[in-house]
Amino acid sequence: MYVNTVIALDAMGGDNAPFEIVKGAVEAVSQYDIKLILIGKENLIQDELKKYSFEHNKIEVVHANEIISNDESPTTAIRKKKDSSVVVGLNLVKEGKAMAFVSAGSTGAILTGSTFIIGRIRGIERPALATVLPNTKGFSFLIDCGANVDSKPTYLVQFAKMGAVYVENILGIKNPRVGLLNIGAEKEKGNTLTKEAYELLEQEKDIHFIGNIEARDVSLGGCDVVVADAFAGNVLLKATEGVSQAVFSIIKTELMSSTVSKIGALILKKSFKNIKQKMDYSEYGGAPFLGLKSLVVKAHGSSDAKAIKNAIRQCVDFINSDIVAKIEQNIQVDVENEK
Amino acid sequence: MYVNTVIALDAMGGDNAPFEIVKGAVEAVSQYDIKLILIGKENLIQDELKKYSFEHNKIEVVHANEIISNDESPTTAIRKKKDSSVVVGLNLVKEGKAMAFVSAGSTGAILTGSTFIIGRIRGIERPALATVLPNTKGFSFLIDCGANVDSKPTYLVQFAKMGAVYVENILGIKNPRVGLLNIGAEKEKGNTLTKEAYELLEQEKDIHFIGNIEARDVSLGGCDVVVADAFAGNVLLKATEGVSQAVFSIIKTELMSSTVSKIGALILKKSFKNIKQKMDYSEYGGAPFLGLKSLVVKAHGSSDAKAIKNAIRQCVDFINSDIVAKIEQNIQVDVENEK
Repeated sequence: MYVNTVIALDAMGGDNAPFEIVKGAVEAVSQYDIKLILIGKENLIQDELKKYSFEHNKIEVVHANEIISNDESPTTAIRKKKDSSVVVGLNLVKEGKAMAFVSAGSTGAILTGSTFIIGRIRGIERPALATVLPNTKGFSFLIDCGANVDSKPTYLVQFAKMGAVYVENILGIKNPRVGLLNIGAEKEKGNTLTKEAYELLEQEKDIHFIGNIEARDVSLGGCDVVVADAFAGNVLLKATEGVSQAVFSIIKTELMSSTVSKIGALILKKSFKNIKQKMDYSEYGGAPFLGLKSLVVKAHGSSDAKAIKNAIRQCVDFINSDIVAKIEQNIQVDVENEK
Repeated sequence: MYVNTVIALDAMGGDNAPFEIVKGAVEAVSQYDIKLILIGKENLIQDELKKYSFEHNKIEVVHANEIISNDESPTTAIRKKKDSSVVVGLNLVKEGKAMAFVSAGSTGAILTGSTFIIGRIRGIERPALATVLPNTKGFSFLIDCGANVDSKPTYLVQFAKMGAVYVENILGIKNPRVGLLNIGAEKEKGNTLTKEAYELLEQEKDIHFIGNIEARDVSLGGCDVVVADAFAGNVLLKATEGVSQAVFSIIKTELMSSTVSKIGALILKKSFKNIKQKMDYSEYGGAPFLGLKSLVVKAHGSSDAKAIKNAIRQCVDFINSDIVAKIEQNIQVDVENEK
């Protein structure tokens, strides 16, 4: 059997490594026509692999002796830990031995390492981290949610273009509505960055820019792509996580407070399960880091096997849709125009 | 009867003016030892007042012929509409005829008019809009949530001090924990603004600075005062409103989807009412605009009589606690130090 699609997977990153990572890898190769390269401490990975039966030519293990933890300085760690699972994995992509890299490890190290080792698409000033956010009508796609603070207006235009390409091709929304995260709906609202970015976005013919969007309207499904500087984007992302967690915690306390409410809660057990499932965005994979010459996916630190499998599927879709080439085309036009 | 505390109330601002505003005013004078000056179209206000019985020397009506709407440019409106309820009300405060001003009208006009007409406390570079945010343990106080975008680090230090004074004296939390809204817990995280503000906040002896706080931890009650630039603060505020609304909407849809879930929902009707009440922060009054020579409170545009009454009680507490003098003391120290 000859397999075209090869994906590198950090077996040591995240809270549940290597157990859940290896399990997710085995599930992925049984479902998709891919080959995975698992990177990390070989003996630990092999011990996990022994638990499962799978097509052995679809999983390769590459040893890496070091692990980068969340509390290390990303720049120092990437420079010094040449034999870490992150650096080894990114190098496999750089050398063309893998087409994408997935890790549930340190976000900072993955971002720094990716830009440094894999490199940016020509014309992209800053790659951006993106994620899906649940809303009442489904999901919207937030870019940037954690890579570039103190962004320039041109970065935001590039985020908008990359976001639109991703959403159209991977999430299947035709002509996605692009909104600029802001603190008012009117054009003249916001800070210096958003005012300048608005002017530029308005002139872009190839995206469906619908103007400013307030955080409240993001939750109500007001647009498909939410463009933001990473500071505001990260506040929005973490507020979304925090508030939904807080609301469910307040509900739980209240429902456990009397016998009657406990009975009600029991009756609604299945309903609450459905609600949690609706709001679970691990179905959509991890957070893609867009604007690089290859795809890098940051899976949530608490990823289980299912989340890892979905992050791998996300890579397969990304590679099949040739997103990098499509982003290049979109951005390249600008580079041409600037000549 | 001689009443010391006089509060000016915009009878024309908000979605439910003048009906709910006048009703709230009547309730307030029956509960507190105050005098209210209702500002707006005299005939409309008098028609409303006729519906109630109250001590007539506790409510005075001052006619103002114009109304500033939400879609007018604040600066132009404040300059041109000299006979608007907002401008007339703020002038009453400036002239010492009232000690505070409450309005559910245009936020922009209230902010612009307040700074322009009432003026800043000496040493305060920018007054800030603040609000309470619900969390799993109660409430935290967010400052700035809408007045100053593109803040300088020194503004944030002043927000922290004003917030701490307010929370200690009005919300009754001793030595309140002050957190800097950021996208990571570590000192070196964030953008240029938060990094510089962190350095300054760390040196402040008179506030209990606990470092950076992420939006997620705000929802979980991680601190009492959340300090932010108005852009990030407003994203946090509107995300909090939007996400809770979205979660309840998703729950409602799910609970109405089957007969069994409808029965469960019926049993839990009272519980859900309790939950909504727990998360209703209109109990705490409106959004105070701090750093001015007198208090100005922005009540929510959709305020009902109860919300207006609570905004008035908030003014009474503010005046009784002499918050302006306490902020002056705190800031004055700095002015002295700088000499």
